[in-house]
Amino acid sequence: MGQLNLKQLAKELNLSVSTVSRALRDSHELKQETKDRVKALAEKMGYQPNFHASSLRQNKSKTIAVIVPEIENNFFSQAINGVESVAQKKGYHVLIYLTHEDFNKEKAILQILRSGRVDGILLSVSNTTHDAAHLQVAVKAGMPLVLFDRLFGNIDVPTVTTDNDRVSYTATRHLIENGCRNVAFFSIGDQLSITTARQKGYLRALEERGLPQNLVTLNFSNSDDNKNRETIRKILSAEKRPDGIFAAVEILAINTYEVCKELGIRIPEDLKIVCFSNLSASVLFHPPLTTIVQPAYEMGGEAAGILFKLIEKKVLLSQEKDVKLPSLIIERGSSG
Amino acid sequence: MGQLNLKQLAKELNLSVSTVSRALRDSHELKQETKDRVKALAEKMGYQPNFHASSLRQNKSKTIAVIVPEIENNFFSQAINGVESVAQKKGYHVLIYLTHEDFNKEKAILQILRSGRVDGILLSVSNTTHDAAHLQVAVKAGMPLVLFDRLFGNIDVPTVTTDNDRVSYTATRHLIENGCRNVAFFSIGDQLSITTARQKGYLRALEERGLPQNLVTLNFSNSDDNKNRETIRKILSAEKRPDGIFAAVEILAINTYEVCKELGIRIPEDLKIVCFSNLSASVLFHPPLTTIVQPAYEMGGEAAGILFKLIEKKVLLSQEKDVKLPSLIIERGSSG
Repeated sequence: MGQLNLKQLAKELNLSVSTVSRALRDSHELKQETKDRVKALAEKMGYQPNFHASSLRQNKSKTIAVIVPEIENNFFSQAINGVESVAQKKGYHVLIYLTHEDFNKEKAILQILRSGRVDGILLSVSNTTHDAAHLQVAVKAGMPLVLFDRLFGNIDVPTVTTDNDRVSYTATRHLIENGCRNVAFFSIGDQLSITTARQKGYLRALEERGLPQNLVTLNFSNSDDNKNRETIRKILSAEKRPDGIFAAVEILAINTYEVCKELGIRIPEDLKIVCFSNLSASVLFHPPLTTIVQPAYEMGGEAAGILFKLIEKKVLLSQEKDVKLPSLIIERGSSG
Repeated sequence: MGQLNLKQLAKELNLSVSTVSRALRDSHELKQETKDRVKALAEKMGYQPNFHASSLRQNKSKTIAVIVPEIENNFFSQAINGVESVAQKKGYHVLIYLTHEDFNKEKAILQILRSGRVDGILLSVSNTTHDAAHLQVAVKAGMPLVLFDRLFGNIDVPTVTTDNDRVSYTATRHLIENGCRNVAFFSIGDQLSITTARQKGYLRALEERGLPQNLVTLNFSNSDDNKNRETIRKILSAEKRPDGIFAAVEILAINTYEVCKELGIRIPEDLKIVCFSNLSASVLFHPPLTTIVQPAYEMGGEAAGILFKLIEKKVLLSQEKDVKLPSLIIERGSSG
């Protein structure tokens, strides 16, 4: 890569490589004068110690990895910002990996990371993850690991989540209190821990009031808007259509708005909507969207803090093993 | 990090470290039987060659860095997805760094990366970058570098941008053709290459029609919505207020919508708006926002492709030294 190395520096100074190396490490075996001369030239010539060589010596990469399904989503980009703010204070680099919801890619990334590239991993699993063996192998190999937001498997690692169950119960109750009697649940990827928890809260609120619980649709796509709109079109054109929708994912609320416009269904008069979303622009929707806002930045920061405790081999407090941060419902026009 | 190393593997096999190492590299000096025995146990025990050791041997990190100001912005997250898609095909890792619009952070990242951590860098400069010395040092040290979207300085590296000037001219003309006579320009960070180019296109369109060019406001913030709304409130409450706004940054269109709602200014009747934005949800705004959509994914992919050519020491075609991909105007209710 054409960068200045120890050998070139030694040649320039007419010293041995080992002397230059010891001078830069401030060895007491050398005269101060020699050390000063070496350091002055190293600085002048812009010498940087080779990263891989010093990592190998220290057995530390000073890097952590964050593995997330995607970043075209405000939740994950805010969470990464939270991770970054903590990592920066620790002098650590953050390596961001995207699985694009692909279990095989997630497995491959985990395997690559076992080679010493990072000191620890923060992971939010993909929605196609159906086996925890790759996580167990990493943990068994001694890799510090914290799962956040989307969990998987019964493995013994710390987790940072939000209270999906409670806030989903509250959001569904909010729709019922505002007059809805047929509340549908929309989500993507039925294997996700967050989907299960959100669905559970939703079902509990309906059960409590003796309302129908047969309006659950989980086969939506994360990327195919056309397919989603077609599914929603069918649901909203049916004779017994829902009068409320609780969407577990932002894109499904957006797709619902689009279909309502197309079919002339009025929000909130004919259909009320509540949705998990960290999109600040949802206040500008017509009507403004009632959202469940997750503490994304705080979740990222908390997960990073716990990961650094693992890396530094500190003992975790019992409440740090399973952190749950509260989400917030912001009521706006779409449910009012 | 507690992971299995060569030494433990050798002990387990009752062989020397050098024999095990040679066996794993399939050396012809060893018997096939020995090699098979080593490889079988290595696989069974989940041995991974140490990343830093093999990087040091090959003088390659198989990693590229993408340095961007932020990722809570659809342009950059889409661009990173484009980079990723190309890097993945090359078997490269992508290290994402955020400067949070801080020039000192950008300098520090560039300096750290000179230590061999990455084989090449893709950079979109921060809006406080006011000196190109850090870029010159990297280039001089032989680090492959490609600038994309936001450029800085007259340094000899390939660039990938969009046609900011042309599309801004067209967008401003569109406002004029729809009846605007006092078109304001809103942007953040007056040192940015993209701001200059967008402003240039805007001014040219006004000049052509002999319209006032004194409505340029550049001191908006990237993060302080309250401050932005206050500035916009003043501008829209003035006696001679603009009848059209060309916003160079998404957040300023959002802030303008908020203030219009507050002040009872009707969009598009009293004020027409056009904005650079890759936010798909802008179609749901009230009214839907006319946007200039940049080819973010394609720009990221193109920049990565050129970077790999530099890394592989291939000769660039002349058109690869300064790539300009076209942006698209999508006309919606806010300007109609």
